[in-house]
Amino acid sequence: MVTQGNDPNAAPLFSPRGSAQEIEEGRAFVPKFDAAGLITCVVSDAKTAELLMVAHMNAQALAQTVETGEAWFYSRSREKLWKKGETSGHVLRIAEIRVDCDQDVLWLKVEQAGAGACHTGRRSCFYRAVVRDAPGAPLTLEFRDDERVFDPAKVYK
Amino acid sequence: MVTQGNDPNAAPLFSPRGSAQEIEEGRAFVPKFDAAGLITCVVSDAKTAELLMVAHMNAQALAQTVETGEAWFYSRSREKLWKKGETSGHVLRIAEIRVDCDQDVLWLKVEQAGAGACHTGRRSCFYRAVVRDAPGAPLTLEFRDDERVFDPAKVYK
Repeated sequence: MVTQGNDPNAAPLFSPRGSAQEIEEGRAFVPKFDAAGLITCVVSDAKTAELLMVAHMNAQALAQTVETGEAWFYSRSREKLWKKGETSGHVLRIAEIRVDCDQDVLWLKVEQAGAGACHTGRRSCFYRAVVRDAPGAPLTLEFRDDERVFDPAKVYK
Repeated sequence: MVTQGNDPNAAPLFSPRGSAQEIEEGRAFVPKFDAAGLITCVVSDAKTAELLMVAHMNAQALAQTVETGEAWFYSRSREKLWKKGETSGHVLRIAEIRVDCDQDVLWLKVEQAGAGACHTGRRSCFYRAVVRDAPGAPLTLEFRDDERVFDPAKVYK
Protein backbone atom coordinates (compact mmCIF):
# COMPACT_ATOMS: atom_id res chain seq x y z
CA MET A 1 0.00 0.00 0.00
CA VAL A 2 1.46 3.33 -1.02
CA THR A 3 0.63 6.16 1.33
CA GLN A 4 1.36 9.83 1.02
CA GLY A 5 4.89 10.80 1.97
CA ASN A 6 6.32 8.40 4.54
CA ASP A 7 3.56 8.58 7.16
CA PRO A 8 2.28 5.01 7.67
CA ASN A 9 -0.98 6.41 9.05
CA ALA A 10 -1.63 8.58 6.00
CA ALA A 11 -4.50 7.68 3.67
CA PRO A 12 -3.53 5.35 0.77
CA LEU A 13 -3.20 7.02 -2.63
CA PHE A 14 -4.73 4.15 -4.61
CA SER A 15 -7.89 2.14 -4.06
CA PRO A 16 -8.27 -1.67 -4.22
CA ARG A 17 -9.51 -3.10 -7.56
CA GLY A 18 -13.17 -4.08 -7.80
CA SER A 19 -15.39 -5.48 -10.56
CA ALA A 20 -14.82 -4.79 -14.27
CA GLN A 21 -17.76 -2.38 -14.14
CA GLU A 22 -16.17 -0.47 -11.24
CA ILE A 23 -12.75 -0.43 -12.91
CA GLU A 24 -14.09 0.79 -16.28
CA GLU A 25 -16.90 3.11 -15.23
CA GLY A 26 -16.01 4.10 -11.68
CA ARG A 27 -14.31 7.11 -10.17
CA ALA A 28 -11.90 5.10 -8.01
CA PHE A 29 -8.28 5.12 -9.17
CA VAL A 30 -7.20 1.47 -9.04
CA PRO A 31 -4.02 1.19 -11.12
CA LYS A 32 -3.06 -2.36 -12.09
CA PHE A 33 0.63 -3.06 -11.58
CA ASP A 34 2.00 -6.14 -13.37
CA ALA A 35 3.78 -9.13 -11.81
CA ALA A 36 6.94 -7.02 -11.58
CA GLY A 37 5.02 -4.23 -9.83
CA LEU A 38 5.10 -1.93 -12.86
CA ILE A 39 2.58 -0.01 -14.96
CA THR A 40 3.24 1.22 -18.53
CA CYS A 41 3.28 5.01 -19.03
CA VAL A 42 2.82 6.68 -22.40
CA VAL A 43 4.24 10.21 -22.42
CA SER A 44 3.17 12.86 -24.91
CA ASP A 45 3.70 16.59 -25.27
CA ALA A 46 0.72 18.41 -23.75
CA LYS A 47 0.86 21.17 -26.39
CA THR A 48 1.72 19.37 -29.62
CA ALA A 49 0.30 15.89 -28.76
CA GLU A 50 3.56 14.38 -30.07
CA LEU A 51 4.37 10.97 -28.59
CA LEU A 52 7.65 11.43 -26.73
CA MET A 53 8.47 8.21 -24.91
CA VAL A 54 7.13 5.14 -23.12
CA ALA A 55 8.42 4.15 -19.68
CA HIS A 56 7.31 2.31 -16.55
CA MET A 57 6.37 3.33 -13.02
CA ASN A 58 6.18 1.33 -9.83
CA ALA A 59 3.83 2.47 -7.06
CA GLN A 60 6.53 4.65 -5.50
CA ALA A 61 7.33 6.40 -8.81
CA LEU A 62 3.64 7.09 -9.33
CA ALA A 63 3.29 8.47 -5.80
CA GLN A 64 6.34 10.74 -6.24
CA THR A 65 5.06 11.92 -9.63
CA VAL A 66 1.74 12.90 -8.08
CA GLU A 67 3.42 14.55 -5.09
CA THR A 68 6.00 16.54 -7.08
CA GLY A 69 4.21 17.23 -10.35
CA GLU A 70 7.25 15.95 -12.26
CA ALA A 71 7.64 12.53 -13.88
CA TRP A 72 9.41 9.74 -11.96
CA PHE A 73 9.81 6.27 -13.43
CA TYR A 74 11.27 2.89 -12.53
CA SER A 75 14.18 1.75 -14.68
CA ARG A 76 13.94 -1.97 -15.44
CA SER A 77 17.54 -2.13 -16.71
CA ARG A 78 19.04 -0.22 -13.76
CA GLU A 79 16.46 -1.61 -11.30
CA LYS A 80 15.95 1.71 -9.56
CA LEU A 81 13.62 4.64 -9.16
CA TRP A 82 14.56 7.34 -11.62
CA LYS A 83 13.54 10.95 -12.01
CA LYS A 84 13.36 11.89 -15.70
CA GLY A 85 15.84 14.73 -16.14
CA GLU A 86 17.88 14.01 -12.99
CA THR A 87 21.06 13.99 -15.13
CA SER A 88 20.03 15.95 -18.22
CA GLY A 89 17.87 18.56 -16.48
CA HIS A 90 15.17 17.72 -19.01
CA VAL A 91 12.41 17.16 -16.47
CA LEU A 92 8.83 16.49 -17.56
CA ARG A 93 6.20 18.61 -15.79
CA ILE A 94 2.84 16.86 -15.52
CA ALA A 95 -0.04 18.68 -17.20
CA GLU A 96 -2.52 15.80 -16.92
CA ILE A 97 -2.55 12.09 -16.11
CA ARG A 98 -5.10 9.86 -17.83
CA VAL A 99 -5.78 6.18 -17.24
CA ASP A 100 -7.19 3.67 -19.71
CA CYS A 101 -10.39 1.60 -19.47
CA ASP A 102 -8.93 -1.33 -17.53
CA GLN A 103 -6.51 0.92 -15.62
CA ASP A 104 -3.29 -0.84 -16.62
CA VAL A 105 -1.80 2.01 -18.67
CA LEU A 106 -1.19 5.65 -17.74
CA TRP A 107 -0.97 8.49 -20.23
CA LEU A 108 1.08 11.47 -19.08
CA LYS A 109 0.60 14.75 -20.89
CA VAL A 110 3.71 16.78 -20.08
CA GLU A 111 5.54 20.03 -20.62
CA GLN A 112 9.20 19.48 -21.36
CA ALA A 113 11.71 21.59 -19.41
CA GLY A 114 14.42 20.65 -21.91
CA ALA A 115 14.76 20.35 -25.65
CA GLY A 116 14.23 16.63 -26.00
CA ALA A 117 12.92 13.57 -24.19
CA CYS A 118 15.12 10.95 -25.87
CA HIS A 119 18.58 10.10 -24.53
CA THR A 120 19.83 10.03 -28.14
CA GLY A 121 19.27 13.80 -28.37
CA ARG A 122 15.98 13.79 -30.24
CA ARG A 123 12.72 15.41 -29.14
CA SER A 124 10.95 12.05 -29.25
CA CYS A 125 12.16 8.44 -28.95
CA PHE A 126 10.10 7.58 -32.05
CA TYR A 127 12.40 8.96 -34.76
CA ARG A 128 12.26 5.96 -37.13
CA ALA A 129 9.47 4.44 -39.19
CA VAL A 130 9.21 0.75 -40.09
CA VAL A 131 9.23 0.37 -43.88
CA ARG A 132 9.37 -2.39 -46.45
CA ASP A 133 11.93 -1.64 -49.12
CA ALA A 134 10.75 -4.43 -51.41
CA PRO A 135 8.33 -7.36 -51.28
CA GLY A 136 10.15 -10.32 -49.75
CA ALA A 137 12.79 -8.16 -48.08
CA PRO A 138 13.16 -7.81 -44.30
CA LEU A 139 11.56 -4.70 -42.82
CA THR A 140 13.91 -1.77 -42.35
CA LEU A 141 13.82 1.63 -40.67
CA GLU A 142 13.64 5.09 -42.17
CA PHE A 143 14.65 8.11 -40.11
CA ARG A 144 11.83 10.66 -39.70
CA ASP A 145 11.67 13.70 -37.38
CA ASP A 146 15.14 12.68 -36.26
CA GLU A 147 16.81 16.08 -35.88
CA ARG A 148 19.02 16.23 -32.81
CA VAL A 149 17.89 19.02 -30.47
CA PHE A 150 20.69 18.52 -27.94
CA ASP A 151 24.09 16.82 -27.84
CA PRO A 152 23.83 13.72 -25.62
CA ALA A 153 27.64 13.63 -25.19
CA LYS A 154 27.48 17.03 -23.48
CA VAL A 155 24.26 16.46 -21.52
CA TYR A 156 25.14 13.00 -20.14
CA LYS A 157 28.73 13.59 -19.09
CA MET B 1 12.01 -16.53 -36.65
CA VAL B 2 8.98 -15.01 -38.34
CA THR B 3 8.96 -15.33 -42.07
CA GLN B 4 6.58 -13.92 -44.63
CA GLY B 5 3.41 -15.89 -45.01
CA ASN B 6 3.95 -19.56 -44.22
CA ASP B 7 6.83 -20.29 -46.56
CA PRO B 8 9.73 -21.60 -44.38
CA ASN B 9 12.18 -20.58 -47.07
CA ALA B 10 10.99 -16.99 -47.22
CA ALA B 11 13.25 -14.23 -45.91
CA PRO B 12 12.75 -13.34 -42.23
CA LEU B 13 10.84 -10.11 -41.54
CA PHE B 14 12.95 -9.04 -38.57
CA SER B 15 16.70 -8.86 -38.08
CA PRO B 16 18.72 -10.12 -35.08
CA ARG B 17 19.58 -7.53 -32.41
CA GLY B 18 23.08 -6.05 -32.44
CA SER B 19 24.90 -3.45 -30.33
CA ALA B 20 23.16 -0.51 -28.65
CA GLN B 21 24.59 1.74 -31.36
CA GLU B 22 23.12 -0.49 -34.09
CA ILE B 23 19.76 -0.72 -32.32
CA GLU B 24 19.48 3.05 -31.74
CA GLU B 25 21.08 4.45 -34.87
CA GLY B 26 20.77 1.67 -37.40
CA ARG B 27 18.33 0.95 -40.20
CA ALA B 28 17.74 -2.69 -39.20
CA PHE B 29 14.35 -3.42 -37.66
CA VAL B 30 15.15 -5.52 -34.58
CA PRO B 31 12.03 -5.47 -32.39
CA LYS B 32 12.59 -6.61 -28.81
CA PHE B 33 9.90 -8.97 -27.59
CA ASP B 34 9.68 -9.46 -23.81
CA ALA B 35 9.92 -12.76 -21.89
CA ALA B 36 6.32 -13.51 -22.87
CA GLY B 37 7.12 -12.84 -26.55
CA LEU B 38 5.24 -9.54 -26.63
CA ILE B 39 5.97 -5.93 -27.60
CA THR B 40 3.94 -2.93 -26.40
CA CYS B 41 2.05 -0.99 -29.08
CA VAL B 42 0.82 2.57 -28.63
CA VAL B 43 -2.01 3.40 -31.03
CA SER B 44 -2.93 6.94 -31.99
CA ASP B 45 -5.20 8.52 -34.59
CA ALA B 46 -3.10 9.46 -37.63
CA LYS B 47 -5.14 12.61 -38.29
CA THR B 48 -5.88 14.01 -34.82
CA ALA B 49 -2.87 12.53 -32.95
CA GLU B 50 -5.28 11.45 -30.20
CA LEU B 51 -4.03 8.51 -28.15
CA LEU B 52 -6.56 5.73 -28.71
CA MET B 53 -5.34 2.59 -26.98
CA VAL B 54 -2.34 0.52 -25.91
CA ALA B 55 -2.12 -3.19 -26.73
CA HIS B 56 0.48 -5.90 -27.33
CA MET B 57 1.72 -7.84 -30.35
CA ASN B 58 3.60 -11.08 -30.62
CA ALA B 59 5.78 -11.71 -33.68
CA GLN B 60 2.89 -13.27 -35.58
CA ALA B 61 0.56 -10.32 -34.89
CA LEU B 62 3.26 -7.93 -36.07
CA ALA B 63 3.83 -9.97 -39.24
CA GLN B 64 0.09 -10.07 -40.00
CA THR B 65 -0.23 -6.34 -39.35
CA VAL B 66 2.54 -5.63 -41.83
CA GLU B 67 1.11 -8.08 -44.39
CA THR B 68 -2.49 -6.87 -44.19
CA GLY B 69 -2.13 -3.17 -43.36
CA GLU B 70 -4.60 -3.60 -40.49
CA ALA B 71 -3.80 -3.94 -36.79
CA TRP B 72 -3.53 -7.39 -35.22
CA PHE B 73 -2.67 -7.86 -31.56
CA TYR B 74 -2.13 -10.63 -29.04
CA SER B 75 -4.64 -10.75 -26.19
CA ARG B 76 -2.93 -11.58 -22.90
CA SER B 77 -6.24 -12.30 -21.15
CA ARG B 78 -7.64 -14.52 -23.92
CA GLU B 79 -4.19 -15.86 -24.87
CA LYS B 80 -4.82 -15.61 -28.59
CA LEU B 81 -4.07 -13.64 -31.70
CA TRP B 82 -6.73 -11.02 -32.21
CA LYS B 83 -7.63 -8.73 -35.09
CA LYS B 84 -8.83 -5.36 -33.81
CA GLY B 85 -12.36 -4.98 -35.14
CA GLU B 86 -12.97 -8.68 -35.84
CA THR B 87 -16.20 -8.46 -33.81
CA SER B 88 -17.02 -4.75 -33.87
CA GLY B 89 -15.94 -4.06 -37.45
CA HIS B 90 -13.87 -1.17 -36.07
CA VAL B 91 -10.62 -2.15 -37.74
CA LEU B 92 -7.55 0.05 -37.55
CA ARG B 93 -5.83 0.77 -40.87
CA ILE B 94 -2.13 1.35 -40.51
CA ALA B 95 -0.90 4.75 -41.72
CA GLU B 96 2.59 4.45 -40.24
CA ILE B 97 4.52 2.31 -37.77
CA ARG B 98 7.28 3.90 -35.72
CA VAL B 99 9.68 2.22 -33.31
CA ASP B 100 11.41 3.78 -30.32
CA CYS B 101 15.13 4.19 -29.65
CA ASP B 102 15.72 0.78 -28.06
CA GLN B 103 13.12 -0.89 -30.27
CA ASP B 104 10.94 -2.30 -27.51
CA VAL B 105 7.83 -0.19 -28.21
CA LEU B 106 5.89 0.30 -31.45
CA TRP B 107 3.78 3.36 -32.23
CA LEU B 108 0.96 2.73 -34.71
CA LYS B 109 -0.61 5.74 -36.41
CA VAL B 110 -3.97 4.52 -37.66
CA GLU B 111 -7.15 5.45 -39.45
CA GLN B 112 -10.22 4.12 -37.67
CA ALA B 113 -12.82 2.34 -39.79
CA GLY B 114 -15.31 2.66 -36.94
CA ALA B 115 -16.41 5.33 -34.54
CA GLY B 116 -14.37 4.31 -31.54
CA ALA B 117 -11.38 2.21 -30.46
CA CYS B 118 -12.49 1.45 -26.90
CA HIS B 119 -14.72 -1.55 -26.12
CA THR B 120 -16.67 0.69 -23.71
CA GLY B 121 -17.98 2.69 -26.68
CA ARG B 122 -15.63 5.67 -26.46
CA ARG B 123 -13.33 6.96 -29.19
CA SER B 124 -10.30 6.46 -26.93
CA CYS B 125 -9.62 4.19 -23.95
CA PHE B 126 -8.26 7.21 -22.06
CA TYR B 127 -11.53 8.87 -21.03
CA ARG B 128 -10.66 9.55 -17.39
CA ALA B 129 -8.10 11.83 -15.73
CA VAL B 130 -6.42 11.12 -12.40
CA VAL B 131 -7.24 13.94 -9.97
CA ARG B 132 -6.75 14.75 -6.31
CA ASP B 133 -9.95 16.00 -4.75
CA ALA B 134 -8.24 17.20 -1.57
CA PRO B 135 -4.81 16.98 0.04
CA GLY B 136 -4.62 13.72 1.98
CA ALA B 137 -7.44 12.09 0.03
CA PRO B 138 -6.94 9.09 -2.28
CA LEU B 139 -6.63 9.94 -5.97
CA THR B 140 -9.87 9.70 -7.94
CA LEU B 141 -10.89 9.82 -11.58
CA GLU B 142 -12.70 12.52 -13.50
CA PHE B 143 -14.42 11.69 -16.79
CA ARG B 144 -13.09 13.72 -19.75
CA ASP B 145 -13.74 13.23 -23.48
CA ASP B 146 -15.95 10.32 -22.42
CA GLU B 147 -18.82 10.68 -24.89
CA ARG B 148 -19.99 7.31 -26.18
CA VAL B 149 -19.70 7.14 -29.96
CA PHE B 150 -21.22 3.66 -30.27
CA ASP B 151 -23.32 1.33 -28.14
CA PRO B 152 -21.13 -1.60 -27.02
CA ALA B 153 -24.22 -3.72 -26.23
CA LYS B 154 -25.21 -3.56 -29.91
CA VAL B 155 -21.70 -3.86 -31.37
CA TYR B 156 -20.50 -6.78 -29.21
CA LYS B 157 -23.55 -9.04 -29.39
